[in-house]
Amino acid sequence: MPSSIKILGIDADDTLWQNEEFFRMVQDRFADMLAAYMPADPLHKHLLAAERRNLGRYGYGIKGFMLSMVETAIDVSQAQVPAHVIHDIVRMGQDMLSHPIHLLPGVADCLPQLADTYKLVLITKGDLLHQEQKLAQSGLGDFFNDVHIVSEKQVNTYSKIFGTDVKTAAMVGNSIKSDIVPALDAGAAAIHIPARYEWAMEKAVEPTSHPRFFKAREFKNVCDLLTQI
Amino acid sequence: MPSSIKILGIDADDTLWQNEEFFRMVQDRFADMLAAYMPADPLHKHLLAAERRNLGRYGYGIKGFMLSMVETAIDVSQAQVPAHVIHDIVRMGQDMLSHPIHLLPGVADCLPQLADTYKLVLITKGDLLHQEQKLAQSGLGDFFNDVHIVSEKQVNTYSKIFGTDVKTAAMVGNSIKSDIVPALDAGAAAIHIPARYEWAMEKAVEPTSHPRFFKAREFKNVCDLLTQI
Repeated sequence: MPSSIKILGIDADDTLWQNEEFFRMVQDRFADMLAAYMPADPLHKHLLAAERRNLGRYGYGIKGFMLSMVETAIDVSQAQVPAHVIHDIVRMGQDMLSHPIHLLPGVADCLPQLADTYKLVLITKGDLLHQEQKLAQSGLGDFFNDVHIVSEKQVNTYSKIFGTDVKTAAMVGNSIKSDIVPALDAGAAAIHIPARYEWAMEKAVEPTSHPRFFKAREFKNVCDLLTQI
Repeated sequence: MPSSIKILGIDADDTLWQNEEFFRMVQDRFADMLAAYMPADPLHKHLLAAERRNLGRYGYGIKGFMLSMVETAIDVSQAQVPAHVIHDIVRMGQDMLSHPIHLLPGVADCLPQLADTYKLVLITKGDLLHQEQKLAQSGLGDFFNDVHIVSEKQVNTYSKIFGTDVKTAAMVGNSIKSDIVPALDAGAAAIHIPARYEWAMEKAVEPTSHPRFFKAREFKNVCDLLTQI
Protein backbone atom coordinates (compact mmCIF):
# COMPACT_ATOMS: atom_id res chain seq x y z
CA MET A 1 0.00 0.00 0.00
CA PRO A 2 1.45 3.40 -0.86
CA SER A 3 1.95 5.73 2.09
CA SER A 4 -0.53 8.51 2.83
CA ILE A 5 2.46 10.54 3.97
CA LYS A 6 4.03 13.05 1.58
CA ILE A 7 6.18 15.23 3.86
CA LEU A 8 8.60 14.04 6.52
CA GLY A 9 9.84 16.38 9.22
CA ILE A 10 13.07 14.98 10.63
CA ASP A 11 14.84 15.93 13.84
CA ALA A 12 18.65 16.17 13.83
CA ASP A 13 20.41 15.63 17.21
CA ASP A 14 20.07 12.01 18.39
CA THR A 15 17.85 11.19 15.40
CA LEU A 16 20.34 11.59 12.53
CA TRP A 17 23.54 11.83 14.54
CA GLN A 18 24.84 11.29 18.08
CA ASN A 19 24.54 14.20 20.46
CA GLU A 20 23.50 13.30 24.00
CA GLU A 21 26.31 10.73 24.22
CA PHE A 22 28.88 13.54 23.83
CA PHE A 23 27.15 15.54 26.54
CA ARG A 24 27.34 12.52 28.89
CA MET A 25 31.05 12.07 28.20
CA VAL A 26 31.69 15.76 28.86
CA GLN A 27 29.63 15.67 32.06
CA ASP A 28 31.73 12.75 33.32
CA ARG A 29 34.93 14.68 32.63
CA PHE A 30 33.39 17.74 34.28
CA ALA A 31 32.71 15.61 37.39
CA ASP A 32 36.33 14.42 37.41
CA MET A 33 37.57 18.02 37.23
CA LEU A 34 35.44 19.05 40.22
CA ALA A 35 35.77 15.88 42.30
CA ALA A 36 37.61 17.85 45.00
CA TYR A 37 34.49 19.95 45.63
CA MET A 38 31.51 17.63 45.14
CA PRO A 39 30.79 13.99 44.20
CA ALA A 40 29.49 13.26 40.69
CA ASP A 41 25.81 12.62 41.48
CA PRO A 42 24.97 15.84 43.31
CA LEU A 43 27.20 17.73 40.86
CA HIS A 44 25.11 16.47 37.91
CA LYS A 45 21.99 17.66 39.75
CA HIS A 46 23.54 21.11 40.27
CA LEU A 47 24.45 21.30 36.60
CA LEU A 48 20.98 20.25 35.46
CA ALA A 49 19.46 22.87 37.78
CA ALA A 50 21.72 25.53 36.22
CA GLU A 51 20.70 24.39 32.73
CA ARG A 52 17.02 24.64 33.67
CA ARG A 53 17.51 28.05 35.25
CA ASN A 54 19.37 29.31 32.19
CA LEU A 55 17.25 27.75 29.43
CA GLY A 56 15.08 30.85 29.03
CA ARG A 57 18.10 33.10 28.57
CA TYR A 58 20.58 30.82 26.75
CA GLY A 59 18.25 28.54 24.79
CA TYR A 60 19.49 25.15 23.57
CA GLY A 61 23.03 24.40 22.51
CA ILE A 62 26.62 23.95 23.59
CA LYS A 63 27.48 27.60 24.35
CA GLY A 64 24.75 27.77 26.98
CA PHE A 65 25.88 24.39 28.33
CA MET A 66 29.45 25.72 28.61
CA LEU A 67 28.25 28.77 30.53
CA SER A 68 26.14 26.57 32.84
CA MET A 69 29.19 24.38 33.52
CA VAL A 70 31.29 27.46 34.38
CA GLU A 71 28.56 28.77 36.68
CA THR A 72 28.18 25.36 38.38
CA ALA A 73 31.95 25.02 38.90
CA ILE A 74 32.04 28.40 40.65
CA ASP A 75 28.91 27.62 42.70
CA VAL A 76 29.88 24.19 43.99
CA SER A 77 33.44 25.28 44.82
CA GLN A 78 32.16 28.39 46.60
CA ALA A 79 34.27 30.42 44.18
CA GLN A 80 37.42 28.48 45.07
CA VAL A 81 37.83 26.73 41.69
CA PRO A 82 41.12 27.82 40.06
CA ALA A 83 41.00 29.65 36.73
CA HIS A 84 42.90 26.85 34.96
CA VAL A 85 39.98 24.47 35.68
CA ILE A 86 37.55 26.96 34.14
CA HIS A 87 39.92 27.20 31.21
CA ASP A 88 39.74 23.41 30.83
CA ILE A 89 35.93 23.54 30.94
CA VAL A 90 35.85 26.16 28.17
CA ARG A 91 38.30 24.15 26.04
CA MET A 92 36.21 21.01 26.55
CA GLY A 93 33.14 22.89 25.28
CA GLN A 94 35.10 24.17 22.29
CA ASP A 95 36.06 20.57 21.51
CA MET A 96 32.37 19.62 21.60
CA LEU A 97 31.64 22.36 19.06
CA SER A 98 34.20 20.95 16.64
CA HIS A 99 33.47 17.27 17.26
CA PRO A 100 33.04 15.24 14.06
CA ILE A 101 29.53 14.08 13.21
CA HIS A 102 28.73 10.41 13.86
CA LEU A 103 25.63 9.36 11.92
CA LEU A 104 23.32 6.96 13.74
CA PRO A 105 22.77 3.40 12.36
CA GLY A 106 20.72 3.22 9.18
CA VAL A 107 20.71 6.98 8.46
CA ALA A 108 23.26 6.91 5.63
CA ASP A 109 21.26 4.21 3.77
CA CYS A 110 17.69 5.13 4.61
CA LEU A 111 17.73 8.92 4.24
CA PRO A 112 18.54 8.90 0.49
CA GLN A 113 15.72 6.38 -0.04
CA LEU A 114 13.28 8.55 1.87
CA ALA A 115 14.37 11.58 -0.18
CA ASP A 116 13.28 9.73 -3.37
CA THR A 117 9.70 9.39 -2.14
CA TYR A 118 9.03 12.16 0.38
CA LYS A 119 9.63 15.85 0.73
CA LEU A 120 12.13 16.01 3.61
CA VAL A 121 12.28 18.93 6.03
CA LEU A 122 14.90 19.14 8.76
CA ILE A 123 13.39 20.57 11.96
CA THR A 124 15.88 21.09 14.76
CA LYS A 125 16.31 23.29 17.77
CA GLY A 126 19.64 24.45 19.10
CA ASP A 127 22.26 26.90 18.12
CA LEU A 128 21.85 28.40 14.63
CA LEU A 129 25.49 28.35 13.52
CA HIS A 130 26.35 25.02 15.14
CA GLN A 131 23.32 23.21 13.71
CA GLU A 132 24.19 24.59 10.25
CA GLN A 133 27.77 23.41 10.68
CA LYS A 134 26.69 19.94 11.81
CA LEU A 135 24.33 19.59 8.86
CA ALA A 136 27.10 20.64 6.46
CA GLN A 137 29.55 18.16 8.03
CA SER A 138 26.99 15.35 7.99
CA GLY A 139 26.86 15.43 4.18
CA LEU A 140 23.05 15.08 4.41
CA GLY A 141 22.14 18.65 3.48
CA ASP A 142 21.20 17.90 -0.13
CA PHE A 143 18.50 15.39 0.89
CA PHE A 144 16.43 18.11 2.55
CA ASN A 145 14.06 20.42 0.69
CA ASP A 146 14.03 22.79 3.61
CA VAL A 147 15.79 23.36 6.94
CA HIS A 148 14.19 24.98 9.98
CA ILE A 149 16.40 25.76 12.96
CA VAL A 150 14.03 26.92 15.69
CA SER A 151 14.38 28.10 19.27
CA GLU A 152 11.64 25.77 20.57
CA LYS A 153 9.46 22.98 19.11
CA GLN A 154 5.85 23.63 19.97
CA VAL A 155 2.50 22.92 18.32
CA ASN A 156 2.59 26.18 16.35
CA THR A 157 6.13 25.38 15.14
CA TYR A 158 4.76 22.31 13.34
CA SER A 159 1.53 24.02 12.25
CA LYS A 160 3.57 26.78 10.63
CA ILE A 161 6.10 24.48 8.93
CA PHE A 162 3.61 21.86 7.64
CA GLY A 163 0.84 24.40 6.92
CA THR A 164 -2.18 22.99 5.09
CA ASP A 165 -0.26 19.78 4.35
CA VAL A 166 -0.19 18.74 8.02
CA LYS A 167 -2.49 15.71 7.46
CA THR A 168 0.01 14.21 5.01
CA ALA A 169 3.00 15.04 7.19
CA ALA A 170 4.88 12.89 9.71
CA MET A 171 7.52 14.03 12.20
CA VAL A 172 10.41 11.67 12.96
CA GLY A 173 12.49 12.15 16.10
CA ASN A 174 13.85 10.88 19.39
CA SER A 175 12.19 13.33 21.76
CA ILE A 176 8.63 12.57 22.89
CA LYS A 177 8.41 16.10 24.29
CA SER A 178 9.75 18.07 21.32
CA ASP A 179 9.31 15.88 18.23
CA ILE A 180 6.29 13.70 18.96
CA VAL A 181 3.64 15.30 21.20
CA PRO A 182 3.55 18.78 19.60
CA ALA A 183 3.60 17.28 16.06
CA LEU A 184 0.63 15.01 16.93
CA ASP A 185 -1.16 17.99 18.49
CA ALA A 186 -0.63 19.92 15.28
CA GLY A 187 -2.37 17.09 13.36
CA ALA A 188 0.64 15.33 11.86
CA ALA A 189 1.65 11.71 12.35
CA ALA A 190 4.74 11.08 14.48
CA ILE A 191 7.38 8.36 14.50
CA HIS A 192 9.44 7.94 17.64
CA ILE A 193 12.93 6.47 17.42
CA PRO A 194 14.16 6.13 21.01
CA ALA A 195 17.73 7.30 21.49
CA ARG A 196 20.27 5.42 23.58
CA TYR A 197 20.39 8.35 25.99
CA GLU A 198 17.67 10.89 26.63
CA TRP A 199 18.38 14.34 28.08
CA ALA A 200 16.64 14.78 31.44
CA MET A 201 14.88 17.92 30.15
CA GLU A 202 13.33 16.02 27.24
CA LYS A 203 11.62 13.34 29.32
CA ALA A 204 7.86 13.02 28.75
CA VAL A 205 5.08 10.43 28.70
CA GLU A 206 4.63 8.44 25.47
CA PRO A 207 1.25 9.09 23.82
CA THR A 208 0.88 5.33 23.23
CA SER A 209 -2.86 5.39 22.57
CA HIS A 210 -2.74 8.12 19.91
CA PRO A 211 -3.78 6.61 16.53
CA ARG A 212 -1.09 8.53 14.61
CA PHE A 213 1.78 7.67 16.99
CA PHE A 214 4.28 5.09 15.74
CA LYS A 215 7.53 3.69 17.02
CA ALA A 216 10.64 2.64 15.11
CA ARG A 217 13.54 0.81 16.72
CA GLU A 218 16.14 2.36 14.43
CA PHE A 219 16.19 4.93 11.65
CA LYS A 220 16.23 2.21 8.96
CA ASN A 221 12.82 0.97 10.14
CA VAL A 222 11.24 4.29 9.16
CA CYS A 223 11.28 3.32 5.47
CA ASP A 224 9.14 0.18 6.03
CA LEU A 225 6.94 1.74 8.66
CA LEU A 226 5.88 4.57 6.38
CA THR A 227 4.26 2.24 3.86
CA GLN A 228 1.83 1.20 6.60
CA ILE A 229 0.72 4.71 7.60
CA MET B 1 7.21 60.26 -7.46
CA PRO B 2 6.20 56.87 -6.10
CA SER B 3 9.06 54.63 -5.03
CA SER B 4 10.30 51.80 -7.24
CA ILE B 5 10.92 49.86 -4.03
CA LYS B 6 8.35 47.32 -2.84
CA ILE B 7 10.25 45.25 -0.27
CA LEU B 8 12.39 46.58 2.56
CA GLY B 9 14.89 44.35 4.32
CA ILE B 10 15.65 45.87 7.72
CA ASP B 11 18.50 45.04 10.08
CA ALA B 12 17.80 44.89 13.83
CA ASP B 13 20.79 45.55 16.16
CA ASP B 14 21.91 49.20 15.94
CA THR B 15 19.38 49.88 13.18
CA LEU B 16 16.11 49.47 15.12
CA TRP B 17 17.51 49.35 18.65
CA GLN B 18 20.75 50.01 20.54
CA ASN B 19 23.20 47.17 20.77
CA GLU B 20 26.85 48.15 20.38
CA GLU B 21 26.50 50.79 23.09
CA PHE B 22 25.72 48.02 25.64
CA PHE B 23 28.75 46.05 24.47
CA ARG B 24 30.95 49.15 25.00
CA MET B 25 29.60 49.66 28.52
CA VAL B 26 30.22 46.01 29.38
CA GLN B 27 33.73 46.13 27.92
CA ASP B 28 34.52 49.14 30.11
CA ARG B 29 33.31 47.27 33.20
CA PHE B 30 35.29 44.22 32.07
CA ALA B 31 38.41 46.41 31.90
CA ASP B 32 37.75 47.71 35.43
CA MET B 33 37.44 44.13 36.73
CA LEU B 34 40.78 43.13 35.20
CA ALA B 35 42.70 46.37 35.81
CA ALA B 36 45.07 44.52 38.17
CA TYR B 37 46.29 42.37 35.28
CA MET B 38 46.29 44.60 32.19
CA PRO B 39 45.41 48.20 31.21
CA ALA B 40 42.19 48.79 29.28
CA ASP B 41 43.62 49.37 25.79
CA PRO B 42 45.65 46.18 25.38
CA LEU B 43 42.87 44.27 27.18
CA HIS B 44 40.34 45.40 24.56
CA LYS B 45 42.74 44.19 21.87
CA HIS B 46 43.04 40.79 23.57
CA LEU B 47 39.28 40.52 23.82
CA LEU B 48 38.77 41.47 20.16
CA ALA B 49 41.38 38.88 19.16
CA ALA B 50 39.50 36.23 21.17
CA GLU B 51 36.22 37.24 19.51
CA ARG B 52 37.82 36.94 16.07
CA ARG B 53 39.38 33.58 16.93
CA ASN B 54 36.05 32.27 18.24
CA LEU B 55 33.70 33.70 15.62
CA GLY B 56 33.76 30.55 13.49
CA ARG B 57 32.82 28.36 16.44
CA TYR B 58 30.53 30.65 18.47
CA GLY B 59 28.95 32.81 15.77
CA TYR B 60 27.45 36.19 16.68
CA GLY B 61 25.75 36.99 19.95
CA ILE B 62 26.15 37.55 23.65
CA LYS B 63 26.83 33.95 24.75
CA GLY B 64 29.91 33.79 22.54
CA PHE B 65 30.95 37.23 23.80
CA MET B 66 30.62 36.00 27.40
CA LEU B 67 32.79 32.97 26.65
CA SER B 68 35.39 35.18 24.92
CA MET B 69 35.46 37.47 27.99
CA VAL B 70 35.99 34.47 30.31
CA GLU B 71 38.79 33.16 28.07
CA THR B 72 40.43 36.60 27.91
CA ALA B 73 40.26 37.06 31.70
CA ILE B 74 42.03 33.72 32.20
CA ASP B 75 44.60 34.49 29.47
CA VAL B 76 45.63 37.98 30.56
CA SER B 77 45.82 36.99 34.25
CA GLN B 78 47.88 33.92 33.40
CA ALA B 79 45.16 31.86 35.09
CA GLN B 80 45.42 33.91 38.29
CA VAL B 81 41.98 35.56 38.03
CA PRO B 82 39.80 34.51 41.00
CA ALA B 83 36.59 32.57 40.32
CA HIS B 84 34.45 35.38 41.78
CA VAL B 85 35.63 37.70 38.98
CA ILE B 86 34.61 35.11 36.38
CA HIS B 87 31.30 34.84 38.18
CA ASP B 88 30.86 38.62 37.83
CA ILE B 89 31.67 38.40 34.12
CA VAL B 90 29.02 35.70 33.61
CA ARG B 91 26.44 37.71 35.58
CA MET B 92 27.24 40.81 33.52
CA GLY B 93 26.60 38.83 30.34
CA GLN B 94 23.33 37.51 31.75
CA ASP B 95 22.31 41.11 32.45
CA MET B 96 23.04 41.97 28.82
CA LEU B 97 20.74 39.14 27.72
CA SER B 98 17.87 40.55 29.75
CA HIS B 99 18.52 44.22 29.04
CA PRO B 100 15.40 46.16 28.00
CA ILE B 101 15.17 47.20 24.36
CA HIS B 102 15.87 50.87 23.58
CA LEU B 103 14.50 51.80 20.16
CA LEU B 104 16.65 54.21 18.15
CA PRO B 105 15.31 57.70 17.27
CA GLY B 106 12.55 57.74 14.67
CA VAL B 107 11.93 53.98 14.63
CA ALA B 108 8.67 54.02 16.62
CA ASP B 109 7.17 56.63 14.23
CA CYS B 110 8.65 55.65 10.90
CA LEU B 111 8.38 51.84 10.98
CA PRO B 112 4.53 51.78 11.09
CA GLN B 113 4.48 54.22 8.15
CA LEU B 114 6.85 52.04 6.16
CA ALA B 115 4.71 48.98 6.94
CA ASP B 116 1.73 50.71 5.24
CA THR B 117 3.59 51.00 1.94
CA TYR B 118 6.23 48.29 1.82
CA LYS B 119 6.57 44.62 2.58
CA LEU B 120 8.95 44.61 5.56
CA VAL B 121 11.37 41.76 6.23
CA LEU B 122 13.58 41.70 9.30
CA ILE B 123 17.03 40.32 8.44
CA THR B 124 19.35 39.94 11.41
CA LYS B 125 22.28 37.83 12.45
CA GLY B 126 23.01 36.79 15.99
CA ASP B 127 21.63 34.37 18.46
CA LEU B 128 18.31 32.76 17.46
CA LEU B 129 16.55 32.86 20.84
CA HIS B 130 17.91 36.26 21.88
CA GLN B 131 17.01 37.95 18.60
CA GLU B 132 13.48 36.51 18.86
CA GLN B 133 13.23 37.78 22.43
CA LYS B 134 14.45 41.25 21.47
CA LEU B 135 11.96 41.46 18.60
CA ALA B 136 9.12 40.40 20.92
CA GLN B 137 10.17 42.97 23.54
CA SER B 138 10.52 45.72 20.94
CA GLY B 139 6.82 45.54 20.12
CA LEU B 140 7.72 45.81 16.42
CA GLY B 141 7.05 42.19 15.45
CA ASP B 142 3.66 42.83 13.84
CA PHE B 143 5.08 45.29 11.32
CA PHE B 144 7.16 42.57 9.66
CA ASN B 145 5.82 40.16 7.05
CA ASP B 146 8.75 37.87 7.62
CA VAL B 147 11.72 37.44 9.96
CA HIS B 148 15.04 35.87 8.98
CA ILE B 149 17.60 35.23 11.73
CA VAL B 150 20.72 34.09 9.92
CA SER B 151 24.22 33.02 10.95
CA GLU B 152 25.94 35.31 8.42
CA LYS B 153 24.83 38.01 5.96
CA GLN B 154 26.35 37.31 2.57
CA VAL B 155 25.32 37.89 -1.04
CA ASN B 156 23.45 34.59 -1.23
CA THR B 157 21.59 35.43 2.01
CA TYR B 158 20.00 38.42 0.26
CA SER B 159 19.56 36.61 -3.08
CA LYS B 160 17.65 33.85 -1.29
CA ILE B 161 15.48 36.16 0.82
CA PHE B 162 14.60 38.68 -1.92
CA GLY B 163 14.43 36.05 -4.69
CA THR B 164 13.17 37.34 -8.04
CA ASP B 165 12.02 40.58 -6.38
CA VAL B 166 15.58 41.72 -5.68
CA LYS B 167 15.39 44.68 -8.11
CA THR B 168 12.48 46.17 -6.15
CA ALA B 169 14.11 45.47 -2.79
CA ALA B 170 16.19 47.73 -0.55
CA MET B 171 18.17 46.73 2.52
CA VAL B 172 18.34 49.17 5.44
CA GLY B 173 21.05 48.82 8.07
CA ASN B 174 24.01 50.22 9.98
CA SER B 175 26.71 47.80 8.84
CA ILE B 176 28.45 48.51 5.53
CA LYS B 177 29.96 45.03 5.67
CA SER B 178 26.83 42.99 6.49
CA ASP B 179 23.83 45.08 5.43
CA ILE B 180 25.04 47.21 2.54
CA VAL B 181 27.77 45.62 0.39
CA PRO B 182 26.29 42.09 0.10
CA ALA B 183 22.77 43.50 -0.52
CA LEU B 184 24.11 45.72 -3.35
CA ASP B 185 26.04 42.75 -4.74
CA ALA B 186 22.83 40.74 -4.75
CA GLY B 187 21.19 43.46 -6.88
CA ALA B 188 19.13 45.25 -4.25
CA ALA B 189 19.34 48.92 -3.29
CA ALA B 190 20.85 49.67 0.13
CA ILE B 191 20.33 52.45 2.65
CA HIS B 192 23.03 53.00 5.23
CA ILE B 193 22.14 54.54 8.59
CA PRO B 194 25.43 55.01 10.43
CA ALA B 195 25.29 53.93 14.07
CA ARG B 196 26.84 55.92 16.88
CA TYR B 197 29.26 53.07 17.53
CA GLU B 198 30.44 50.49 15.04
CA TRP B 199 31.84 47.10 16.10
CA ALA B 200 35.46 46.70 15.01
CA MET B 201 34.59 43.51 13.13
CA GLU B 202 31.96 45.29 11.03
CA LYS B 203 34.25 48.00 9.65
CA ALA B 204 34.36 48.20 5.84
CA VAL B 205 34.77 50.74 3.04
CA GLU B 206 31.63 52.61 1.95
CA PRO B 207 30.63 51.85 -1.66
CA THR B 208 30.03 55.58 -2.24
CA SER B 209 30.07 55.41 -6.03
CA HIS B 210 27.50 52.60 -6.32
CA PRO B 211 24.33 53.99 -8.00
CA ARG B 212 21.99 52.09 -5.66
CA PHE B 213 23.78 53.08 -2.43
CA PHE B 214 22.04 55.70 -0.27
CA LYS B 215 22.66 57.20 3.12
CA ALA B 216 20.20 58.27 5.81
CA ARG B 217 21.20 60.19 8.91
CA GLU B 218 18.52 58.64 11.10
CA PHE B 219 15.84 55.99 10.70
CA LYS B 220 13.12 58.64 10.17
CA ASN B 221 14.88 59.84 6.99
CA VAL B 222 14.29 56.46 5.35
CA CYS B 223 10.63 57.32 4.69
CA ASP B 224 11.51 60.45 2.61
CA LEU B 225 14.52 58.90 0.97
CA LEU B 226 12.53 55.97 -0.40
CA THR B 227 10.28 58.22 -2.51
CA GLN B 228 13.41 59.27 -4.42
CA ILE B 229 14.66 55.76 -5.25
